[in-house]
Amino acid sequence: MTPSDSSCFTLDALAERLGARLVGDGSRRVSGLATLKDAGPEHIAFLANSSYLKDLAGTRAAAVLIQPEHANACPVARLELDNPYLGYAHLSQLFDPFLARPQGGIHPTAVVAEDVRLGARVEIGANAVIEAGATLDDEVAVGPGCVVGAGARIGAGSRLHANVTVCHGAVIGRRAILHSGCVIGGDGFGFAHDGTRWHKIAQLGGVVLGDDVEVGSCSSIDRGALDDTVIGNDVKIDSQVQIAHNVRIGDHSALAGCVGIAGSTRVGKHCMLGGGVGLSGHLTLCDGVHVTGMSLVTNSIHEPGVYSSGTGAMPNALWRRSAVRFKQLDDIVRRLARLEKRDRDA
Amino acid sequence: MTPSDSSCFTLDALAERLGARLVGDGSRRVSGLATLKDAGPEHIAFLANSSYLKDLAGTRAAAVLIQPEHANACPVARLELDNPYLGYAHLSQLFDPFLARPQGGIHPTAVVAEDVRLGARVEIGANAVIEAGATLDDEVAVGPGCVVGAGARIGAGSRLHANVTVCHGAVIGRRAILHSGCVIGGDGFGFAHDGTRWHKIAQLGGVVLGDDVEVGSCSSIDRGALDDTVIGNDVKIDSQVQIAHNVRIGDHSALAGCVGIAGSTRVGKHCMLGGGVGLSGHLTLCDGVHVTGMSLVTNSIHEPGVYSSGTGAMPNALWRRSAVRFKQLDDIVRRLARLEKRDRDA
Amino acid sequence: MTPSDSSCFTLDALAERLGARLVGDGSRRVSGLATLKDAGPEHIAFLANSSYLKDLAGTRAAAVLIQPEHANACPVARLELDNPYLGYAHLSQLFDPFLARPQGGIHPTAVVAEDVRLGARVEIGANAVIEAGATLDDEVAVGPGCVVGAGARIGAGSRLHANVTVCHGAVIGRRAILHSGCVIGGDGFGFAHDGTRWHKIAQLGGVVLGDDVEVGSCSSIDRGALDDTVIGNDVKIDSQVQIAHNVRIGDHSALAGCVGIAGSTRVGKHCMLGGGVGLSGHLTLCDGVHVTGMSLVTNSIHEPGVYSSGTGAMPNALWRRSAVRFKQLDDIVRRLARLEKRDRDA
Repeated sequence: MTPSDSSCFTLDALAERLGARLVGDGSRRVSGLATLKDAGPEHIAFLANSSYLKDLAGTRAAAVLIQPEHANACPVARLELDNPYLGYAHLSQLFDPFLARPQGGIHPTAVVAEDVRLGARVEIGANAVIEAGATLDDEVAVGPGCVVGAGARIGAGSRLHANVTVCHGAVIGRRAILHSGCVIGGDGFGFAHDGTRWHKIAQLGGVVLGDDVEVGSCSSIDRGALDDTVIGNDVKIDSQVQIAHNVRIGDHSALAGCVGIAGSTRVGKHCMLGGGVGLSGHLTLCDGVHVTGMSLVTNSIHEPGVYSSGTGAMPNALWRRSAVRFKQLDDIVRRLARLEKRDRDA
Repeated sequence: MTPSDSSCFTLDALAERLGARLVGDGSRRVSGLATLKDAGPEHIAFLANSSYLKDLAGTRAAAVLIQPEHANACPVARLELDNPYLGYAHLSQLFDPFLARPQGGIHPTAVVAEDVRLGARVEIGANAVIEAGATLDDEVAVGPGCVVGAGARIGAGSRLHANVTVCHGAVIGRRAILHSGCVIGGDGFGFAHDGTRWHKIAQLGGVVLGDDVEVGSCSSIDRGALDDTVIGNDVKIDSQVQIAHNVRIGDHSALAGCVGIAGSTRVGKHCMLGGGVGLSGHLTLCDGVHVTGMSLVTNSIHEPGVYSSGTGAMPNALWRRSAVRFKQLDDIVRRLARLEKRDRDA
Repeated sequence: MTPSDSSCFTLDALAERLGARLVGDGSRRVSGLATLKDAGPEHIAFLANSSYLKDLAGTRAAAVLIQPEHANACPVARLELDNPYLGYAHLSQLFDPFLARPQGGIHPTAVVAEDVRLGARVEIGANAVIEAGATLDDEVAVGPGCVVGAGARIGAGSRLHANVTVCHGAVIGRRAILHSGCVIGGDGFGFAHDGTRWHKIAQLGGVVLGDDVEVGSCSSIDRGALDDTVIGNDVKIDSQVQIAHNVRIGDHSALAGCVGIAGSTRVGKHCMLGGGVGLSGHLTLCDGVHVTGMSLVTNSIHEPGVYSSGTGAMPNALWRRSAVRFKQLDDIVRRLARLEKRDRDA
């Protein structure tokens, strides 16, 4: 992609913004970010991981964000700071030519119910629909094709990308970023069985997202059955994630793509769930739990740490033999115990 | 969420509606449902699972739905019935302030092709699109932003939430509930390989959903290659589920979130698939099969019962050791057999 | 479904189109495709897999696409060719009554920014939105409810089904087919942690899809962090797939439903990923790797071949015993080694 209007900054200005120590010509201008390897003389690069040290000597970047301990190895100008990756995050915001900058203004094709409360500088895109009783606080930006349901509330500075659905009564905090295709507040999956067939349980609870929540493309967060589904502050949710009714996620937790969390499970603060992780219903994960990709968690976890399940991929022929033996494991242990007993008795 | 117009009912009225035996003041009014623990004096609560018996003594509910065997322990008015959970399901419908009550009426921004057949009291939301030859039976409600493709048929009383896509020619039964972002009738995944590249197989089949089917947010049900993909009556499908072409699901089965079913597999009646379950293609699961969460099924199942695969999560260090050993299982068994032989020979 | 205007072809015409050898009455007309078993006298059928040989003798089809080696067993007219499945793929295109045939024309409710560049015979459906600076090449068809973001480019002959989202700056090659609900170019999942909370990394990269790419319903392909996410030519992606930022997929690879690929992983050419497969981030899979359904790949793969992980489903009681033993595997091996040592020492 070729950004149409990328901005230009002096190294002095960037150093000041990051609180970094500049070593080099502060008047030099850069117009973009790049990796050490790909950077040209118009770019600023960063060394956030020592595995990229090999790319440092040959970089063509105008300057590098770098920790003081690696400063001497830097062949070009540098901005020294303790957390270059964080510096990169901050600078990245400056160089986004397509960044949401709500202009204010409601597209004439948007359908906004009469009693909707709109804050200052709200932007509503083409063919978006805002239903009765909804509230959009200051500087909310609603993309084209979005639907915000009756009585929903969107906090200040939040951005809904195109084709997002926020269902009736959902509450979204401030500075949320909701990506295209995500659905906030669809019905939880609740049915009573009468012995023959299913009877729907109306999902009367709501869904509440804290401040600074991000939800990826095509993810879904269901409303609660009686109580609310609650997503804490600064929770980051990737694409294709499913969060069932009455789940609670603690502040600052991060969920990678394709995670699925069943009903009423509680995830603590500062937890990280790898891609494709599944959590059974009615569990509790304490703060600081990390679960590696595609693991299945069927019991509560009460100690912080890293948890895993499954088996890594291997050549199919080997896997076939191992998977067969897996089913024999209990028998294998019994055979082993028998031998041990005979050995002891001998 | 704060429902705007929740209704109010006497206990007499509720008892009559449920066919329950009321013990207490039948003129008392309740305006909502809550759990035993959270209920206030305006609520009716329920005891559906004996693990919540501990909350019964302290409940502040106006009344409790309860089985006769627990009646004596109930400190407040009670509605006795055999299946309190089913009673809760029935009452939940009464207390849903946002429940679909099609008002009739087509929003002026909806685009409805000229030859679309509309039943009585059909409702079509803002910016929805109904293509040529589609049929919407009586009291169908189509949410804002939905697209109903050419020639599709939606049965009476069905509700499409916002931003649902029903593709051309899809057939949806009566009283369906389709949640936001779901897609019914996208192409199945079919290609022929010529040794070098792929050639698309046009997906000429349809997709047919029976009566009383519910499909969760962001789920997809693909159309068939030649024959139809068929979802039986009273099948409940959660969010983020993928059902491939030519799959058939029997009546009354339930599929939890993130299930994936590959092409041409047949699932029986009254089956339950846990979250994240994967079924390979061209399998048959008989009636009454339950598969637990995140299991992989690669062979047909001919006996009802509960099936599982995988390994539960464990601390990562333990898992690393176990996963390594998994790949050695066949060798382990050979070593064991050698010892057994020597033991026998000794 | 009952196609409204299926076409009619002589066997002569079909044989010529496929370069097949016709044995039978070339003037006979067929109006559709069907399986050997379901075909009626108006259908042409195909024998693509010898497991269907049993259906050949009883077929009522007008003619059968068949390999020369099975020709003698065919009771009706036949079209002989080396790859009947490929022949079926080619014929299927003829019999799709709903096939995209862009008529040209922009629906009056579509919102198309002034500076959008439109090729010849472009079709834009009702309530679609095309943002500023986008380019739609010749014969692009954009379905109802789609949003094409600012500066995006869609190659000639591509089709977006209903409610597709193509984000700003995304580049889609020629003849792409994007199914409903898919999202191309949502933000990658990138955050820096400051020890307390997350800071968003603006996703400055793009997303580039080659020619002849198909993306299934509700799938998402994220834009890159700095570089682009790149999908090669002739890559086929099923429904509910998640492709993270900076992933690269080589030409002619196929990804089945519910696959998830974490950031910066590279998949070679002619790879096949089964349903629900998960690839960790920063891996490399060489050309010609096949991974079976629901496998987890956590290490790079440098040899073509078939790879697998996990355990197949088994009765729950057996699984419980095996899963417990899995956690004891390292201990089991130690016990086994101790016995072996004692045996050697004896």
